[in-house]
Amino acid sequence: MTPERYAKVKAVLNKRQKDLTVLMDEVNKPHNLAAIVRTCDAVGVGHAHAIAPSKRLRLGNNTTSGSTKWVRVDTHPDIDAAAKVLRAQGMQLVCTQLSDRSVDFREIDYTKPTCIIVGAEKFGVSEATAAAADHHVIIPMDGMVQSLNVSVATAIVLYEAERQRREKGFYDSLQLDDELYQKLMTEWLHP
Amino acid sequence: MTPERYAKVKAVLNKRQKDLTVLMDEVNKPHNLAAIVRTCDAVGVGHAHAIAPSKRLRLGNNTTSGSTKWVRVDTHPDIDAAAKVLRAQGMQLVCTQLSDRSVDFREIDYTKPTCIIVGAEKFGVSEATAAAADHHVIIPMDGMVQSLNVSVATAIVLYEAERQRREKGFYDSLQLDDELYQKLMTEWLHP
Ligand SMILES: C[S@@+](CC[C@H](N)C(=O)[O-])C[C@H]1O[C@@H](n2cnc3c(N)ncnc32)[C@H](O)[C@@H]1O
Ligand SMILES: C[S@@+](CC[C@H](N)C(=O)[O-])C[C@H]1O[C@@H](n2cnc3c(N)ncnc32)[C@H](O)[C@@H]1O
Repeated sequence: MTPERYAKVKAVLNKRQKDLTVLMDEVNKPHNLAAIVRTCDAVGVGHAHAIAPSKRLRLGNNTTSGSTKWVRVDTHPDIDAAAKVLRAQGMQLVCTQLSDRSVDFREIDYTKPTCIIVGAEKFGVSEATAAAADHHVIIPMDGMVQSLNVSVATAIVLYEAERQRREKGFYDSLQLDDELYQKLMTEWLHP
Repeated sequence: MTPERYAKVKAVLNKRQKDLTVLMDEVNKPHNLAAIVRTCDAVGVGHAHAIAPSKRLRLGNNTTSGSTKWVRVDTHPDIDAAAKVLRAQGMQLVCTQLSDRSVDFREIDYTKPTCIIVGAEKFGVSEATAAAADHHVIIPMDGMVQSLNVSVATAIVLYEAERQRREKGFYDSLQLDDELYQKLMTEWLHP
């Protein structure tokens, strides 16, 4: 273990956001899952969630740039199971979805404990998932096409959260609790 | 042609940004190209550019959601040819790229005529392309992985441009010149 490696791991763990996460609602294309996990790592989301009823999550190792090593992804059989876990952590559920209660995604306060929910290419988020959310948000669309690629939409919302949190100093002081910090430090330094 | 269709096409053309574009420097994965073109459409970029020396651009029709119908993509053999066209339109060239002259992407004024340059998954932008740019910008990375997926990075910068332009009213009044407006109106209504 080099001193540079130690410094890098420490700097990254110091920026991990324990109360910001993503829930992928049956997102099924590996390259989309991979790009989402990679963006999670980049904004300090160290723990993400997926609803994946039938099969194991396929995260292509190719385009994640290895990010699955740094981001834990828990799978849940359905929204009820996922919401139970997230609610227990005090998260507001922000669902990216066009509906009659959607607001512009920039209007949400992402400095609160927040889970951003995203849906699959074909079907979007399920009705049950949409119903469970506290907020529906929409990224403005000024063109002919109705929706963005899901990994693109996730990243736009995550970087708005990053902007708000950076402004409030969330990346300047340790957020993780000590136990998790020590556990990850050990795992990442001695793989 | 229905009145709804006419209203939609008119609304979209009224928001097209004639002085905002993207240059893809040998981006070669079809799903990345497709996601980028789709985001272009969404923020009102009706005309994009690609450096693609040897082969025709492969834009998978699947994941573009048909956006190649609404966004013209011109290919150029190299950066010199591309830069010549873009400079003639008065564009500043903003290259997404980590270098010793990179600034945070949010520091750039995207209300100026702007071309955002992005590179390929493996190699990034070429040295010649980086050298031709007026600005190098970086999206902050707080994790273990070094870079974002290219379609994700493009979207984050494009939506910062959208935010700045929306604030200044760029989506509230017609930007296209009359000739192009009429041409696109005709093409889109009578395909
Ligand atoms: C391709 S879209 C799904 C489109 C689907 N046909 C629908 O009607 O919901 C995939 C996912 O990306 C996200 N998304 C795409 N564009 C969005 C936008 N403009 N605003 C908010 N979320 C968006 C949502 O999570 C959505 O479920
Ligand atoms: C996967 S990256 C290329 C990484 C490549 N290995 C390099 O060293 O440049 C693909 C493209 O996405 C864009 N990109 C990815 N992450 C970025 C970031 N954090 N800041 C700015 N641009 C980024 C750049 O256009 C880059 O050329």
